[in-house]
Amino acid sequence: MESSSKSKSEKIMDIANKRGFIYPSSEIYGSKAGFWTYGSLGTRIRHKWESLWRDYFLSLNNNFYEIDDCNIMPKKVFESSGHLKNFNDPMTECEKCHTRFRADQLVEDTLKKDVSGMKEDVLTKLINDNKIKCSNCKGSLSDVRFFNMMFDIKVGAVNPEIMYLRPESAQSPYLAFKREFEATRRKLPLGLSVIGRVYRNEISPRQGFFRLREFLQAELQIFFDSDKVNEHDDFDNVKNYNLIVYFASDKKLKKISAKDLNEKLKIPKFYVYHMVKVQQFYLELLNIPESLFRFRELDESERAFYNKIHFDIELNLETLGGFKECGGVHYRGDHDLGGHQKGSGEKLEVTIDESGKSKKVLPHVLELSFGVDRNFWALLDVFFKEESERTLFSFPQIVCPFNAAVFPLVNKEKLPELAEKVFLSLNKDFDVFFDDSGSIGKRYRRQDEVGTKYCITVDFDSLTKNDVTVRDRDSMEQVRVKVSELKDYISKN
Amino acid sequence: MESSSKSKSEKIMDIANKRGFIYPSSEIYGSKAGFWTYGSLGTRIRHKWESLWRDYFLSLNNNFYEIDDCNIMPKKVFESSGHLKNFNDPMTECEKCHTRFRADQLVEDTLKKDVSGMKEDVLTKLINDNKIKCSNCKGSLSDVRFFNMMFDIKVGAVNPEIMYLRPESAQSPYLAFKREFEATRRKLPLGLSVIGRVYRNEISPRQGFFRLREFLQAELQIFFDSDKVNEHDDFDNVKNYNLIVYFASDKKLKKISAKDLNEKLKIPKFYVYHMVKVQQFYLELLNIPESLFRFRELDESERAFYNKIHFDIELNLETLGGFKECGGVHYRGDHDLGGHQKGSGEKLEVTIDESGKSKKVLPHVLELSFGVDRNFWALLDVFFKEESERTLFSFPQIVCPFNAAVFPLVNKEKLPELAEKVFLSLNKDFDVFFDDSGSIGKRYRRQDEVGTKYCITVDFDSLTKNDVTVRDRDSMEQVRVKVSELKDYISKN
Repeated sequence: MESSSKSKSEKIMDIANKRGFIYPSSEIYGSKAGFWTYGSLGTRIRHKWESLWRDYFLSLNNNFYEIDDCNIMPKKVFESSGHLKNFNDPMTECEKCHTRFRADQLVEDTLKKDVSGMKEDVLTKLINDNKIKCSNCKGSLSDVRFFNMMFDIKVGAVNPEIMYLRPESAQSPYLAFKREFEATRRKLPLGLSVIGRVYRNEISPRQGFFRLREFLQAELQIFFDSDKVNEHDDFDNVKNYNLIVYFASDKKLKKISAKDLNEKLKIPKFYVYHMVKVQQFYLELLNIPESLFRFRELDESERAFYNKIHFDIELNLETLGGFKECGGVHYRGDHDLGGHQKGSGEKLEVTIDESGKSKKVLPHVLELSFGVDRNFWALLDVFFKEESERTLFSFPQIVCPFNAAVFPLVNKEKLPELAEKVFLSLNKDFDVFFDDSGSIGKRYRRQDEVGTKYCITVDFDSLTKNDVTVRDRDSMEQVRVKVSELKDYISKN
Repeated sequence: MESSSKSKSEKIMDIANKRGFIYPSSEIYGSKAGFWTYGSLGTRIRHKWESLWRDYFLSLNNNFYEIDDCNIMPKKVFESSGHLKNFNDPMTECEKCHTRFRADQLVEDTLKKDVSGMKEDVLTKLINDNKIKCSNCKGSLSDVRFFNMMFDIKVGAVNPEIMYLRPESAQSPYLAFKREFEATRRKLPLGLSVIGRVYRNEISPRQGFFRLREFLQAELQIFFDSDKVNEHDDFDNVKNYNLIVYFASDKKLKKISAKDLNEKLKIPKFYVYHMVKVQQFYLELLNIPESLFRFRELDESERAFYNKIHFDIELNLETLGGFKECGGVHYRGDHDLGGHQKGSGEKLEVTIDESGKSKKVLPHVLELSFGVDRNFWALLDVFFKEESERTLFSFPQIVCPFNAAVFPLVNKEKLPELAEKVFLSLNKDFDVFFDDSGSIGKRYRRQDEVGTKYCITVDFDSLTKNDVTVRDRDSMEQVRVKVSELKDYISKN
């Protein structure tokens, strides 16, 4: 096949572009790096992932809710959160041709070493010591300085106010916390999630679809009483579950039970419980193979200063050459509510009832954070398969763009009408595609290529026997199924 | 009641703030006008409205799809679309204190006349002739000039490029059209929808929640062959349906059949068909009373120059003093694809099959456009009810934040456990709230206030008889229902 010399990443991107998963945004004008459109198929898959995420994580506690907020927010929010001061990328500029580079990437590419989290003076020293020059004109590079990654916006015609596009969705739940605490049960834990767009002015976005300037996050901020950080009602039910963890201390991958992680390594129960739920989401709901999943512990130098405990959620993605961050579990302490309480002058403490006594609490936050686009790309990477005659995505049905496709064998003698009837009978409960062009073999390939689980062919026998041929994507086996039993067949398998 | 001196709008806003429907964004920092947060209840209602919209409009044709795109787009997009040149609000500035005003609003407020669509020189003349002065300091006002309402953004650290936050979501389907045409069936009509945020730098947003700087649109762009504008496969099935239309010509409200609108008033069938579907969406799905709905025809001076036919979708909202625009049906001709073809140099014609012959077409566009936030507010306005003892929202179940709430009568003797069981048995199929605090009467009021359809009380009899009391929001009647029959009961009513 012509495509065999292409990398897996290029092959997936070709299909994604051609079939309407994703393609560069505003493509006909020549796209700007880091901006992508979700096409008709990609939107379906992403929405399914989002629904799954929402249903799963919000049902962990009947006091968890979703909210939605503006993408443009006031400057003061990011003064209090620390983003205005700290949300920077290191930049260096060629002193001759004035091309700018992201300093850490430049050093990493040149020296092939991990420099994440290094301060500007350390990076400057590395550039000077190793005589790293401008890759454009070989000119000398300036000292490394920081460049703030937020986009600013002038709002109003009358004395415009500087506001910012949010660089993460987490601030909204912090700002809404007091209102929602009052509006809901006045109980802790209280969870507030946001699924939405965020914006970062990356100096030079690379890695195709994996580092974006505008992207989506699904985040759940759980507000809880820090006195209860080592408690969870449901902990006993998960204590023997084995977590897959890559430890910062000894750089080793281990399987460790929830109980041991809590008792031996002193990670609090409230934190460990949610790690279990995250791992189950990937392995049990999304069918991600165990070997491709791990938590990676971040040590003190790597994690944000306000995170007390920080494990990244990583997936091993062949298209990106190894384990990559797709999310994280962050124990943020009282950094957020404390910061906004100080910055706004508004009391963010709440009064809770503890065995009949009232108690004032400034809640701590446990954040479950997921990059939606990264998780979307991970599905394409993990479930892509090449066989001699076809390529396919072996998606689990819960994230298939289509559960089934319906084909009339030929476009005559009432087959299209019956096929249309079958299509409409499934259309309410499932995502179904209708295709009446080309040979059945070609139609199978087209559906395999986008990951449709079942192909349903209506043929002449269907007219008298009221049954159809159902062909499975993965086994390619075909069985006859009564039209009246199709719904059950698709649901059960 | 204390609240009786408040306007309906204030009463709704009080509940919306307190109960978590909507509240000002970044409220603890003092909010900027035109930015709002959807709280936990508002997010539920809005998501339900969006799902309903998506399921309904995308199922009008099996070649309609949803896509999703970036909110930040290149300058060239808005050069071609005309927004850079034409997307302006008229502004006047006080020559003494330099306060800026939206000129049309100022003139409207002062002279109590409709000035929409008036040119800057006409507005300037009205200000001068009527001696309208600065409302702040009584200074003279400048000539009216236009102020572009798009937010610009600098992208990239290296020679930053000016890009824009999209002021409408429609451009994305136009830019994606060619890709999606190829990726789907290569057939017309092809529909591409976007539900997403848009941004407008309003000079002085007023009307609370109704004119926003950041808001949501649900739009469907239907690409079709203009030779077939007077055809629709399904037209015969709707030809006798009566449309409610306020005509520009004689300023009269009439009921007119789809057939007459087409034959007598020469509105093409493809357009009229979609008007019918829009009206059915409001009257049949959302239960909006007929008297509150109308289409309003815009005459040539009111509509955008590229719209060949333009009817607004209006709802009569008491909180806003009359019929207000909540959407529109726009026949945009080839303005969009033509403009982008010219601007990008990319051919946007497609080849379709017509009875075995191939035909080149630059499709025309029919746009169905809905303001999501306005429709959300309309639900609050239309379904708000005050009774002597309570306030309620009589939402249809399809947009209720909760279908049901479950209460243990008291928090002892296994009632909470059974109530929790009932809650969990309903939680997968419906949106259910659990409340165990306060008297049952108070809990009823709290649920009425947010529009929960059923309150389910678990009492001592429930322990032995396995039934519960179900109380209906609207009639306040109570019936005993077997726990095993609850699902059916909630679904059917």
